[in-house]
Amino acid sequence: MRGVVMHGPGDVRVEDRQVPSIVDPGDAILKVEAACICGSDLWPYRGIDADFPEGGRPMGHEYVGTVVEVGRDVTNVRPGDFVVGSFCLSDNTCEICVDGFQSRCANGGFMGDTQAQYTRVPQADGTLVVVPGGKPEDEDVIASLLAASDVLGTGWFGAVAAQAGPGKTIAVVGDGAVGLSAVLAAKALGAEQVIAFSRHEDRAALAREFGADVVIAERGEEGAATVRELTGGYGAHGVVEAVGNQVSMEQAIASCRPGGHVGYVGVSHGVSLDGQSLFFAEVSLLGGPAPVRRFLPDLIERILAGEINPGKVFTSRLPLEEAGAGYRAMDERKDIKVFLRP
Amino acid sequence: MRGVVMHGPGDVRVEDRQVPSIVDPGDAILKVEAACICGSDLWPYRGIDADFPEGGRPMGHEYVGTVVEVGRDVTNVRPGDFVVGSFCLSDNTCEICVDGFQSRCANGGFMGDTQAQYTRVPQADGTLVVVPGGKPEDEDVIASLLAASDVLGTGWFGAVAAQAGPGKTIAVVGDGAVGLSAVLAAKALGAEQVIAFSRHEDRAALAREFGADVVIAERGEEGAATVRELTGGYGAHGVVEAVGNQVSMEQAIASCRPGGHVGYVGVSHGVSLDGQSLFFAEVSLLGGPAPVRRFLPDLIERILAGEINPGKVFTSRLPLEEAGAGYRAMDERKDIKVFLRP
Repeated sequence: MRGVVMHGPGDVRVEDRQVPSIVDPGDAILKVEAACICGSDLWPYRGIDADFPEGGRPMGHEYVGTVVEVGRDVTNVRPGDFVVGSFCLSDNTCEICVDGFQSRCANGGFMGDTQAQYTRVPQADGTLVVVPGGKPEDEDVIASLLAASDVLGTGWFGAVAAQAGPGKTIAVVGDGAVGLSAVLAAKALGAEQVIAFSRHEDRAALAREFGADVVIAERGEEGAATVRELTGGYGAHGVVEAVGNQVSMEQAIASCRPGGHVGYVGVSHGVSLDGQSLFFAEVSLLGGPAPVRRFLPDLIERILAGEINPGKVFTSRLPLEEAGAGYRAMDERKDIKVFLRP
Repeated sequence: MRGVVMHGPGDVRVEDRQVPSIVDPGDAILKVEAACICGSDLWPYRGIDADFPEGGRPMGHEYVGTVVEVGRDVTNVRPGDFVVGSFCLSDNTCEICVDGFQSRCANGGFMGDTQAQYTRVPQADGTLVVVPGGKPEDEDVIASLLAASDVLGTGWFGAVAAQAGPGKTIAVVGDGAVGLSAVLAAKALGAEQVIAFSRHEDRAALAREFGADVVIAERGEEGAATVRELTGGYGAHGVVEAVGNQVSMEQAIASCRPGGHVGYVGVSHGVSLDGQSLFFAEVSLLGGPAPVRRFLPDLIERILAGEINPGKVFTSRLPLEEAGAGYRAMDERKDIKVFLRP
């Protein structure tokens, strides 16, 4: 089969690789029907947090696919099922999973190797969710289901952590695919006013299409001050942080009113929070890898019903063979997110 | 009148001072019936975060008292009422107050000058709560009501932020008056198992009396590992942090399971949180000055009903004139908390 391997910063190749097979009795093998490039794939691409083993680093953790084989312990999915899975593996039965934090499953781990024609999913029973009705004919629907695998699920978690709901003003820091998905999530969860931060017209346009009522170009303390102006001086009830750096984290906290909620889902890089500032900000903070599995059944239902169209974050669709061009386009911010056809 | 003034680190004097009078129409003047020394008063006493103006620094922010005079805008309390107030001033009407975060009232501030025979309370309508039945005859009940003014209210907020409740295991870092109050609060809120950290037998004994099921002597990562052992490997559902330094904060986060809640109420000193560690810990964090006003009516009711006896944190009771000895005893950890009779 063909699969994407990164050999060093900026060095993405599509190579012949071994088709995976069942290793553990809880595994499933999928024919990957759609994969994509994640913003977090750009960290090693840019040489940050980069660790390249001998033979390179197989890429990808987002996927929808058709089950082709299952281990003997697997009972929730079977060959032929069209499934969506989280980028985090989970047994979905431990106390942490039952509490809805499948991304920190006591027996979990992270998914990998999905930018390929086939992939192996450990903990298949607790990780995969069957899409009712099988593989959709419309590639737009497939794109939306693929988004649910990570970027939508992550934005959704951010909005839930920010306690988006009726009567609330929710601000979103970050106009990448996760931030835009958080805008969509906040609105879908009933937020009264959604404020997006963006200074790129294409991204601001998609934010508006996803439900943003206001788009602010200012950043940092200036951006936070604008949020306060829009909220009677108080700050937003909830803020989603979808970047992961010091400036964005401080902007998120400063934009939130005391007693409000900051959901931070941008993978944290070089962030340090001063305890005393946080103490006196008096906001709730919750973040981390999103427990996408918690939200998947609901997200699949909303997508199939046509209520939400998160697949619009994919601004281009390429054959797997052109993955390198996809990485370049995302690195240069020409594309928000790139869909790959294996 | 007589009042406590700190002139420099370790230099506490009881002096003649002016009886306060109404300044703003929302003020009330109280005859202070009981005051006390706070753990946070020890920071300037020890020369940390110390700022001593000309003439010294009048001390105290915890109080119960009898109203002797009110400004023309005050309607909720009147002369003769026996009242408890929060150490934070609040209008109790702004959006932040209505959401239960009176400690960050948009028009608020901090109370001061209560280690004295009389004190002025700004924002009296939104800050003070009348005790039904007037001044209790039993000084133990007065001590418990005084505890509600800060230390109990703060421990209670920590336990609420840690989401203490039925079926939950709650760990408490810190065996000072706030930590011990958090133990009491967690148990009163229905926690199934309360774990206290202490290596001082007198404090451990009070923790047990307040409801701790287990007392752990280990600290840091070793202490957190013991909590995990006691909770099926998962960690506590909620943790109250009641110290405010780097070690205690890290211990609190490490003792909490993913998806759990850390309520941090120790005033933060020199704490810095690494964003990435926090991201992957995936716990909810909420802390800050406690919105005691939110809890006061409930706390007063529980105290008058004899359900809780938080006044036991006062291990000695002294005349106001001996405040200096009280500061020394707390500084040397001979007393947990000192009650002052004005």
